[in-house]
Amino acid sequence: MPGDIPADDFRRAMHRVADLVADYLESVGDYPVLPRVAPGEVARALPAAAPDAPEPLDRILDDYRALIEPNVTHWNHPGFLAYFAITGSGPGILGEALTAGLNINAMLWRSSPAATELEERVCDWLRRMMDLPEGFSGHVNDTASISSLVALAAARHRLPGLDVRGRGLAGRPAVAPLTLYASDQAHSSIDKAAIVLGLGAESVRRVETDGAFRMSVPALAAAIAEDRAAGRLPMAVVATVGTTSTTSVDPVPAIADLCRDQGLWLHVDAAYAGSAAICPELRALMPGIERADSLVVNPHKWLFTPVDCSVLYVRDPALLKAAFSLVPEYLRTEEPGVTNLMDLGVQLGRRFRALKLWMVIRAFGVEGLRERIREHCAIARWLAGAVAATPGFELAAPAPFSTVCFRAVPRGDDGDPADGDRCDRFNERLLAAVNAAGPFFLSHTVLRGRTTLRVAIGNLRTTREHIEALWRLVGERAAALAAEGV
Amino acid sequence: MPGDIPADDFRRAMHRVADLVADYLESVGDYPVLPRVAPGEVARALPAAAPDAPEPLDRILDDYRALIEPNVTHWNHPGFLAYFAITGSGPGILGEALTAGLNINAMLWRSSPAATELEERVCDWLRRMMDLPEGFSGHVNDTASISSLVALAAARHRLPGLDVRGRGLAGRPAVAPLTLYASDQAHSSIDKAAIVLGLGAESVRRVETDGAFRMSVPALAAAIAEDRAAGRLPMAVVATVGTTSTTSVDPVPAIADLCRDQGLWLHVDAAYAGSAAICPELRALMPGIERADSLVVNPHKWLFTPVDCSVLYVRDPALLKAAFSLVPEYLRTEEPGVTNLMDLGVQLGRRFRALKLWMVIRAFGVEGLRERIREHCAIARWLAGAVAATPGFELAAPAPFSTVCFRAVPRGDDGDPADGDRCDRFNERLLAAVNAAGPFFLSHTVLRGRTTLRVAIGNLRTTREHIEALWRLVGERAAALAAEGV
Repeated sequence: MPGDIPADDFRRAMHRVADLVADYLESVGDYPVLPRVAPGEVARALPAAAPDAPEPLDRILDDYRALIEPNVTHWNHPGFLAYFAITGSGPGILGEALTAGLNINAMLWRSSPAATELEERVCDWLRRMMDLPEGFSGHVNDTASISSLVALAAARHRLPGLDVRGRGLAGRPAVAPLTLYASDQAHSSIDKAAIVLGLGAESVRRVETDGAFRMSVPALAAAIAEDRAAGRLPMAVVATVGTTSTTSVDPVPAIADLCRDQGLWLHVDAAYAGSAAICPELRALMPGIERADSLVVNPHKWLFTPVDCSVLYVRDPALLKAAFSLVPEYLRTEEPGVTNLMDLGVQLGRRFRALKLWMVIRAFGVEGLRERIREHCAIARWLAGAVAATPGFELAAPAPFSTVCFRAVPRGDDGDPADGDRCDRFNERLLAAVNAAGPFFLSHTVLRGRTTLRVAIGNLRTTREHIEALWRLVGERAAALAAEGV
Repeated sequence: MPGDIPADDFRRAMHRVADLVADYLESVGDYPVLPRVAPGEVARALPAAAPDAPEPLDRILDDYRALIEPNVTHWNHPGFLAYFAITGSGPGILGEALTAGLNINAMLWRSSPAATELEERVCDWLRRMMDLPEGFSGHVNDTASISSLVALAAARHRLPGLDVRGRGLAGRPAVAPLTLYASDQAHSSIDKAAIVLGLGAESVRRVETDGAFRMSVPALAAAIAEDRAAGRLPMAVVATVGTTSTTSVDPVPAIADLCRDQGLWLHVDAAYAGSAAICPELRALMPGIERADSLVVNPHKWLFTPVDCSVLYVRDPALLKAAFSLVPEYLRTEEPGVTNLMDLGVQLGRRFRALKLWMVIRAFGVEGLRERIREHCAIARWLAGAVAATPGFELAAPAPFSTVCFRAVPRGDDGDPADGDRCDRFNERLLAAVNAAGPFFLSHTVLRGRTTLRVAIGNLRTTREHIEALWRLVGERAAALAAEGV
């Protein structure tokens, strides 16, 4: 009988994996954040075809250690400050390992009672932690891309008299073009959702933002009015709480008022900053989120939970079920009153993602999670202060949470500030030089047409000392580049 | 400095998890497959709110062991024969634990070179194993729901002159209603994709099947002609290789001919049976799959890889990129010629799922994987033979792979076979009685209106002896029920 690998071999290898992971977490800071590997180098080291015969587990783990681990970008590194810095924390890793062993599909209550009920309960824990009112019902998706897609599909489903679920959008002259509204700082996943849902990328009105990168409500109102006047059908507004470039917060109360008056769905994208809502003083920076029809927060971003884990809250889960539920005979079950989580979204297959979130919340405790988020914000405030106090640099945006946007403002040979294009090229060279050094990885964005460096602080291993060292490195590299000529 | 949990605590807990998982896999067969828990029982054992203070890892793991593990449905149990039986094999679990430790997002080559290149290489290994030609390019999604959605979005994008990506489907009188074709046995994920994509559930033509549950090509041709005559725009055909109810195989060569003549996209849903293509004699049962425009196979179904892992092959990855790629400034990178996997689908966030598949393939070897799939098919043949040879039972469908559909055909008091409705109720009671016993979990389906029991064999722990015991149990329970009256 062939079967699984021998039980003793598995146990031994799993203990080796325990040490591999523990060793990695203890030493990840010794790697350069970005591996020094050229495109194609890893692929060339891998055989073109799979082996016919079994290979010993230890050889596979040796190859993992020699070929894979050194050649990944180290998201768990204290110097990973790109995109949104994340942490696969210890408790979350324990949860993922247990999830893999159970290997359950939480599609139906029957296909896993404990996974279904733990998911509902833990989402409700997080709802309370974020000071969202009762009546918000949460479930776990893989990513915010899917959570926002599901939310906007529900908004589409709610349009009266259209039966989009049954009849779709094509070939129906009576259906007006649908439109969505999001700020010019909103995440690209909103555009992708519009494409997937058949609304089209052009259906997304990118509403202008104010000096602090927050959606202009007068501009939003004008865009809605213009679309209505042109015979289009406004469907939903996406307000972002913690935009990707600058972590700006849209004025949700005024947007919610407008959505109420206009009968539009309000989706709040709090994928990153939603985690900060567990601290009352940071929750105060996002008034009005309790008025959303749907809200997404990603514990895999800033709540120390390994990817993937995105929680979608909705006020009306029955609407999600009406939009998505399809129960073929082979999935019909008989338990009355239970939630079958497959009814709430796109995917039938659902990993048991609530387990790791449960373990993270319990292992740190709510106060412990608050303390860590506050520490990240404090480090960011220190950096923002250092930027502001350093000649030749400027803050590019307010830093309300743990992400700091700045740029160098070099002076030309004449002693005057370099013009915009030269300044952009200087900042691009500065970014490349900082990232080439090894201990840090920053990403960039463009704000008002100008190249901007971003420092996102969100990994549990990142300390004030790391950021002080980063700031020294930035200063040294900027000086060296300036000496070469701006 | 708060940080992650102490390194020593993590290492110790991770070793405990290694033993918890190893113990679970060794003893999972001692559980009833379906936990004996009532709706709400787990939820009531969980506090209503999260703890404020940190809790010791050992207490959390104790609670996992006492409350979660016993109350999941045991997908890794040798008696789990419902839906499609799956295995989180040892090598795959090792891979998932390592993936959790790395916690990388393989969205861009830069955000993880090794993850990107391993994913491309391992998908190419599997392509060769399945005897698919060069030119098929694979990438990993979470589920077949998403893989099929992505494939059908590409088909929609390819429609000439419509610019669905930019302009969408709504409010365009010139765009005809789009239609999809799939058999009456195709998976519900196709309907869900049609809903999400804005085609509408009614756009899916459910084409009738023949006596062996295979799509009727004349009926398909007639449906396409009828739609064209009515001014609708046929877009794609989904051929299923291994349907969910009976594992029937649609006649792909004739469907491919029709798609070629009609200019339709051919998507092959081989989520379950595609894994069997690694055995040449089983690959021979699915001629023509090499002619697909897109094909999905789920290693998390029958290739012993923990959920989630769904591989989508397409002939034209540039089309996927054209349909989906959206590169905001903050994700722009500079490496020329690399694949940025985020360009190929819906989700920006992408777990490193290729690692576990790489470990599974290497640890078993291609021959080892073939041996296991053949063993499952041999056990299924034994069961099909036993059903056919047992008075009072009938096979409900051919069993080309590892899934057997059967029903009891009880006789009434008059000695004649019970009528259809009474037969259905008898089989429902039989299913409930078998599942209540504990050691097995079967699911059901309805074929030609008649209730049918399904035995899906695909777990590495399932042996011929288990299935012999199942068949004895079915016989005993059927006899007991018959004695109570049909």
